[in-house]
Amino acid sequence: MSPEPINYCNQCGENVSLLTPAGDNRDRHVCDACGQIHYQNPKVVCGCIPVWGERILLCRRAIEPRKGLWTLPAGFMENGETLQHGAARETMEEACAEIAGQTLYAIYNLPRVNQVYVMFRAELTGEDCFAPGAETLETRLFEERHIPWDDLAFRVVRATLERYLADRKTGRFAVAMEDIL
Amino acid sequence: MSPEPINYCNQCGENVSLLTPAGDNRDRHVCDACGQIHYQNPKVVCGCIPVWGERILLCRRAIEPRKGLWTLPAGFMENGETLQHGAARETMEEACAEIAGQTLYAIYNLPRVNQVYVMFRAELTGEDCFAPGAETLETRLFEERHIPWDDLAFRVVRATLERYLADRKTGRFAVAMEDIL
Repeated sequence: MSPEPINYCNQCGENVSLLTPAGDNRDRHVCDACGQIHYQNPKVVCGCIPVWGERILLCRRAIEPRKGLWTLPAGFMENGETLQHGAARETMEEACAEIAGQTLYAIYNLPRVNQVYVMFRAELTGEDCFAPGAETLETRLFEERHIPWDDLAFRVVRATLERYLADRKTGRFAVAMEDIL
Repeated sequence: MSPEPINYCNQCGENVSLLTPAGDNRDRHVCDACGQIHYQNPKVVCGCIPVWGERILLCRRAIEPRKGLWTLPAGFMENGETLQHGAARETMEEACAEIAGQTLYAIYNLPRVNQVYVMFRAELTGEDCFAPGAETLETRLFEERHIPWDDLAFRVVRATLERYLADRKTGRFAVAMEDIL
């Protein structure tokens, strides 16, 4: 996938050119004036599967992309935090929910959109301890048979839920890695 | 950790200010002219523990930081690739070595430097199938008792090797996550 366009150097404000720097093996945006190389790398999305007993908490998105569709709480990892802190922060921001017992669960490569998802299993700290955050229209606990499969926001959410529900039947939750192409 | 300095907008070349955008909860560099928000997020480093029998392949760094010290092959994940492809690419670039049987092994949060390491276990495809790449002074297979513990480049390399050697004694290699603070 080509890098996103960069028009100007964020260090000196001059023009950049797309070229392969000496010793490198792929095109980068390089400043014509100061020579700064502007690397672009995948972003990490961290999130979780918050459960209360047999039910799973989903959030209906209030923002694009996929506004109106259901998702697990997840979002871009921020500088200065760990994956588990990021997942807990996103759960608080999107679902106003505290979680406990976080366990690393599944990692998804999304090379076409330059993302890596890192998903945790987690438990809500109370049955009614959730509410829509600013980016969420609605939060709800779903039993398996009521999961809105046709209204999920992202393939990675479907993959995570399918894996979780299958593993729950066996009682074994090995950490897995999967590519979503 | 504060974001790295950004002086100019890479979209329009105008000045940026550090401020908290509406609906956000932390400072971002925002363009004074076009309003573009310049998010900065952690980077993923992917790498592996390449083994041949009981021995582990290490690379002596030819570049800063930690030039002259020993490391496992690892480097920044690139756009358009998966974690496992990135780890294999880095092993080829740094040690001219092909690997097989890649298995997800350990994830390290390094929040102080805004990095997440994802390390795999892997096997070399031949006993003599490695050599120093452009960023490497020397590549060598080490038996456990010869690992240069005092000359390792990074704490995360030490943590990975310690975990691997301990797990190898038990024969169990569960995927683990650890913070390096």
